[in-house]
Amino acid sequence: MKNTFGQSVCVTLFGESHGDAIGAVIDGLAPGIDVDSELIKSQLAKRRPSGKTDTPRVENDNFQILSGVFNGKTTGTPIAIVIPNENTKSKDYNYGVARPSHADYTAYMKYHGYEDYRGGGHFSGRITAALVASGAIAINALKKLGINIGTHILCCGGVYDRPFEDVENEVLELQGKAFPVLSEDSEEKMTEAIVKAREQKDSIGGKIQTAITGMPAGVGEPWFDSVEGVLSHALFSIGGIKGVEFGLGDGFANAFGSQANDKFRYENGKVVTETNNNGGINGGITNGMPITFTCTVKPTPSIAKEQDTVNFIDRENAKIEIKGRHDPAIIRRVCVVVDSVCALTVCDLLAQRYGTDVFLKGLN
Amino acid sequence: MKNTFGQSVCVTLFGESHGDAIGAVIDGLAPGIDVDSELIKSQLAKRRPSGKTDTPRVENDNFQILSGVFNGKTTGTPIAIVIPNENTKSKDYNYGVARPSHADYTAYMKYHGYEDYRGGGHFSGRITAALVASGAIAINALKKLGINIGTHILCCGGVYDRPFEDVENEVLELQGKAFPVLSEDSEEKMTEAIVKAREQKDSIGGKIQTAITGMPAGVGEPWFDSVEGVLSHALFSIGGIKGVEFGLGDGFANAFGSQANDKFRYENGKVVTETNNNGGINGGITNGMPITFTCTVKPTPSIAKEQDTVNFIDRENAKIEIKGRHDPAIIRRVCVVVDSVCALTVCDLLAQRYGTDVFLKGLN
Amino acid sequence: MKNTFGQSVCVTLFGESHGDAIGAVIDGLAPGIDVDSELIKSQLAKRRPSGKTDTPRVENDNFQILSGVFNGKTTGTPIAIVIPNENTKSKDYNYGVARPSHADYTAYMKYHGYEDYRGGGHFSGRITAALVASGAIAINALKKLGINIGTHILCCGGVYDRPFEDVENEVLELQGKAFPVLSEDSEEKMTEAIVKAREQKDSIGGKIQTAITGMPAGVGEPWFDSVEGVLSHALFSIGGIKGVEFGLGDGFANAFGSQANDKFRYENGKVVTETNNNGGINGGITNGMPITFTCTVKPTPSIAKEQDTVNFIDRENAKIEIKGRHDPAIIRRVCVVVDSVCALTVCDLLAQRYGTDVFLKGLN
Amino acid sequence: MKNTFGQSVCVTLFGESHGDAIGAVIDGLAPGIDVDSELIKSQLAKRRPSGKTDTPRVENDNFQILSGVFNGKTTGTPIAIVIPNENTKSKDYNYGVARPSHADYTAYMKYHGYEDYRGGGHFSGRITAALVASGAIAINALKKLGINIGTHILCCGGVYDRPFEDVENEVLELQGKAFPVLSEDSEEKMTEAIVKAREQKDSIGGKIQTAITGMPAGVGEPWFDSVEGVLSHALFSIGGIKGVEFGLGDGFANAFGSQANDKFRYENGKVVTETNNNGGINGGITNGMPITFTCTVKPTPSIAKEQDTVNFIDRENAKIEIKGRHDPAIIRRVCVVVDSVCALTVCDLLAQRYGTDVFLKGLN
Repeated sequence: MKNTFGQSVCVTLFGESHGDAIGAVIDGLAPGIDVDSELIKSQLAKRRPSGKTDTPRVENDNFQILSGVFNGKTTGTPIAIVIPNENTKSKDYNYGVARPSHADYTAYMKYHGYEDYRGGGHFSGRITAALVASGAIAINALKKLGINIGTHILCCGGVYDRPFEDVENEVLELQGKAFPVLSEDSEEKMTEAIVKAREQKDSIGGKIQTAITGMPAGVGEPWFDSVEGVLSHALFSIGGIKGVEFGLGDGFANAFGSQANDKFRYENGKVVTETNNNGGINGGITNGMPITFTCTVKPTPSIAKEQDTVNFIDRENAKIEIKGRHDPAIIRRVCVVVDSVCALTVCDLLAQRYGTDVFLKGLN
Repeated sequence: MKNTFGQSVCVTLFGESHGDAIGAVIDGLAPGIDVDSELIKSQLAKRRPSGKTDTPRVENDNFQILSGVFNGKTTGTPIAIVIPNENTKSKDYNYGVARPSHADYTAYMKYHGYEDYRGGGHFSGRITAALVASGAIAINALKKLGINIGTHILCCGGVYDRPFEDVENEVLELQGKAFPVLSEDSEEKMTEAIVKAREQKDSIGGKIQTAITGMPAGVGEPWFDSVEGVLSHALFSIGGIKGVEFGLGDGFANAFGSQANDKFRYENGKVVTETNNNGGINGGITNGMPITFTCTVKPTPSIAKEQDTVNFIDRENAKIEIKGRHDPAIIRRVCVVVDSVCALTVCDLLAQRYGTDVFLKGLN
Repeated sequence: MKNTFGQSVCVTLFGESHGDAIGAVIDGLAPGIDVDSELIKSQLAKRRPSGKTDTPRVENDNFQILSGVFNGKTTGTPIAIVIPNENTKSKDYNYGVARPSHADYTAYMKYHGYEDYRGGGHFSGRITAALVASGAIAINALKKLGINIGTHILCCGGVYDRPFEDVENEVLELQGKAFPVLSEDSEEKMTEAIVKAREQKDSIGGKIQTAITGMPAGVGEPWFDSVEGVLSHALFSIGGIKGVEFGLGDGFANAFGSQANDKFRYENGKVVTETNNNGGINGGITNGMPITFTCTVKPTPSIAKEQDTVNFIDRENAKIEIKGRHDPAIIRRVCVVVDSVCALTVCDLLAQRYGTDVFLKGLN
Repeated sequence: MKNTFGQSVCVTLFGESHGDAIGAVIDGLAPGIDVDSELIKSQLAKRRPSGKTDTPRVENDNFQILSGVFNGKTTGTPIAIVIPNENTKSKDYNYGVARPSHADYTAYMKYHGYEDYRGGGHFSGRITAALVASGAIAINALKKLGINIGTHILCCGGVYDRPFEDVENEVLELQGKAFPVLSEDSEEKMTEAIVKAREQKDSIGGKIQTAITGMPAGVGEPWFDSVEGVLSHALFSIGGIKGVEFGLGDGFANAFGSQANDKFRYENGKVVTETNNNGGINGGITNGMPITFTCTVKPTPSIAKEQDTVNFIDRENAKIEIKGRHDPAIIRRVCVVVDSVCALTVCDLLAQRYGTDVFLKGLN
């Protein structure tokens, strides 16, 4: 399994940046789930470059659903989604000159020169559009079960958004935002930092924080398929994510057990925890609290500044100035991709635990 | 797949803390690998509690290899390793009263009261002994290919060890250390902090840093089976690990692209990078530089202080004072577990890429 | 994994008979394999209905390769193939009246009425076109390694073709035949039997025999992934196949060990067997002789005769006369599907054993 | 995955004929299932050689359950079962001289001489004892859901037992039989044939027929995970099985569609079929009728007659007279192994479809 993820609900990705189309096949999703074209479109719109912080390459993302949907609902058989590539400019790339921190060189070492290198080929962030379209269907399936997912930019360019506080409501609020932050003034300050980086022919990264609310307790596995393990596996498939921390994350390193432990108590007959430092997961299994985690996003590797590198075809040192069209920061666009990947992963976890019909029958 | 990990080289775990035995089955490892009992013993010794920083529960770890080894070498068929439990005291546990940040409550929600709760049952850190024994065989297989793994405690109780500098040699040095740190004075200071935490009936966590040297370029997959994804999946199966960051990790959040990007250059005819901020992985695929990552380890949940919690059988709030025998910090003992999990995962990645005989035939 | 098969080389299927398109994604195939459009077309032509023995529904099978192919060769990343449905007539189906021996009723029990029932939906033999297009790429990859696959109709309508004799050459001859039989007069007699069945508003089945030549010894696994197990798993995904027998198959039931055992001997320095009753597989692993097996194909369930059945929507007994356009025997068309499924499965077995680059580097 | 089978309920096998022990790990089975030691013992007894038709090597099969069972019930975590090897005689084997139709030569080609060759090593039928012990737990889990499995010898040595007629009751009757046949006089006649084969220093095979009753409709998948595909995959892991046919099997080859199709009708408000030629499966998915299939078992390869073969170490032709202790027919002993493998596979299919708790909660 290379481009397929999941056991009961599986997603398979395909496509290259400058090929005919990209797409995904989602298999194992229950029948009877509403496939909401408007939601798919609005999710794709969030991922699409826009405004002054992103690359000028804008695609229409005119997705087509080739199978698995009948009368507006999932049939239970594989859903194939295809998104044609339209706005491609292949002249901007010079094969052999490795863009630092990109996959040009590693692709060459893996594919021996047969890789479609144009625009990053199969490694391009473009392919995440297929994840987002697939994820939109999963998000809808989860919403019916009372499960919601939201991601905000926690920090970017030295500007910090506040962490989740009233997480149940905040995940819903975030779903409507093009620039997903919780504090009112974060958007402006972060945008400023991003624009400034672009002016300096540079790029920046940051951190994002995600919450999944409404998860039942008792989902996940003790060892290899811990919820942390499965989610991180999926998250690290997103280019640019280099760190995943659950709950308190980094903060655990300098806390005492007495501070870090989440005290249990009954609230309205339900077990809850005082704090949620463990991010909703104990021993790899959900405890019914929101799943929370942060991802570290590295600065976009494509920068306009001249960089030292190699030409791996001519086997010599080289210099590169990346022209093309690139984002000074992908962090805004990554948020919806993370939500999508989480939604697909959570659908898989639930289908494994409760059977494939859980999305029809509900959690009880 | 719940307690099985890997595609070509797979490990299956079993056992409970106070059951008859714990163990593992390793499948898919090439024939002809030396199975070095002394290495297995010394690795198990590193994981075993010892001295003043750990729990007084000490097991002999008299492992038995039931299959898959013939004349001191792997046969290529499944290797079953069993480690009997000897030093068990089951009276210390009070079923129904959930230990905060432990899996008692989540196990109950998953297994409906049928779980073997004694000593944490299947969720106990005790099971990692089976990972360590299995990993020792994998470590040996990798050593023949020139691949070495080492982990040190980067910080604990506010004491910081220095990060890797001369990583090729340092991973080898670490393999011989019972308390794996790079700076001379870290051990004493960290030990002090751990002992102090115990005296306060409390516990502490920290961060560890791992390097895998000698990896060939071109291993891993672009999307779901990125090296980051596969490694993190395996690492998060280790109880207590709540964050995994590759290369610069957290540091990416506030870096510019021009700082974070790793410049390529030729060195003795081989492509290397100036810095290794990406931790040896570009686009999910190894670039030939050492794979490096840090893991955040949460403070041991078991503390002697009284804590608020619930009794999920009586369905009421409760208080708990954890008696038993516990570590004030597991961070030292986690290092060898991380090495072991990495070794098994890297064996799997190599076998997928180069075929099952790679360990016999070598990388070239 | 539901519509995905394989571990190292994987194929994912999608599509419904009367939807927009059907297709497949092949992942894990090595880079650098020639993608021969003419071969894909000629393989699809073999599967396509033609002449008097088949359904009058003829599709153009204008396949498109959306990804994974660059400059006429595989890139090593997922190959998405889409085949639009063109000649669809959806009026011929009456939902709720279960066609006997078809999947109408079982689909309803699985998908709860959300299934796309038109033309058999996802269960239609139409989807095998995607297997054939995918298989054509795999067949080409294997040919480079000296591995060839051929299938002939062993019996149909009481007419028997002779079994393989000079299998190395016969598999090559079969590759060029539209009606794949070994004896000269079998085609005419079988055609006669098929036409007669159609005239009687009935259908017939038969047996087919397949050989895979050029397989190296030492491929496969002792227990669950025996070559028999993996191949049969793939073969039984083809609708209509109800039996798979390796080597002597049925004939083993009444043979003595002394007759059934294949004597080994050296021939030109290579181990061969006198007979090949075991179909090239001992203990689940290839022995270097051709892999041979037969498949039993049931008569096409769609017949024009009136049949007793149920209406599972109205929950009452019913009668059905299947109009539509159907084959009186699918056995001719199944042969190329079997070759395709075998090719994909063998590619997977080889990639697992020898690594993903085996198709580039060769078997030695 | 090599020695692991299943997705939601998985079994991992290990062990060699003359090693310390054989065993299995079953993972993913629901908590709360009764583990009945007496049933495990009686199932192992059925598999054990006995009387005049079998090998004189008799093992006590003193199985130990190391984990996953607490207070007599499954905990939901991995169940490790170990069966020590006791009665081993390793002198009877002469490494390098390949026993015809055995795995000696293929094991050498796969494991390069590192395999444990003693007594067939990992390829020995001895390992099926672990499948039988595991299967006994699965059989118990299914019984609670009203699902029963039974296998009888359909033919052996030219003697034919009658096929299933009153299958619901017959599967139960078979469970109590040491020599599983339906006709009264079959046992005596078959025994005679087997004894005669032994006297002639020869061996015989046969056919067995299996039924699984009580299966709900709607289980299985349309393409690659058809019930036929999944079951055959598991069945072909049993050494000696060379053919698997569902329902009418071979009989489909010469039937007309009008004869082969199973007419549906309502009976007491439930959909049933008149005949069950499809063996309870339409389009890969269960239709609620009993699943039925036959397996062809080849004659035991080990015969006392001198045979031509090769010595693959000396690389020359050779002769062999197999001394050791062997069965002239394994067909009686295979029946309980088939039941066990089916039970594990059906548990997996149900857990995938209805969730892991199905064995606790029941099918409705």
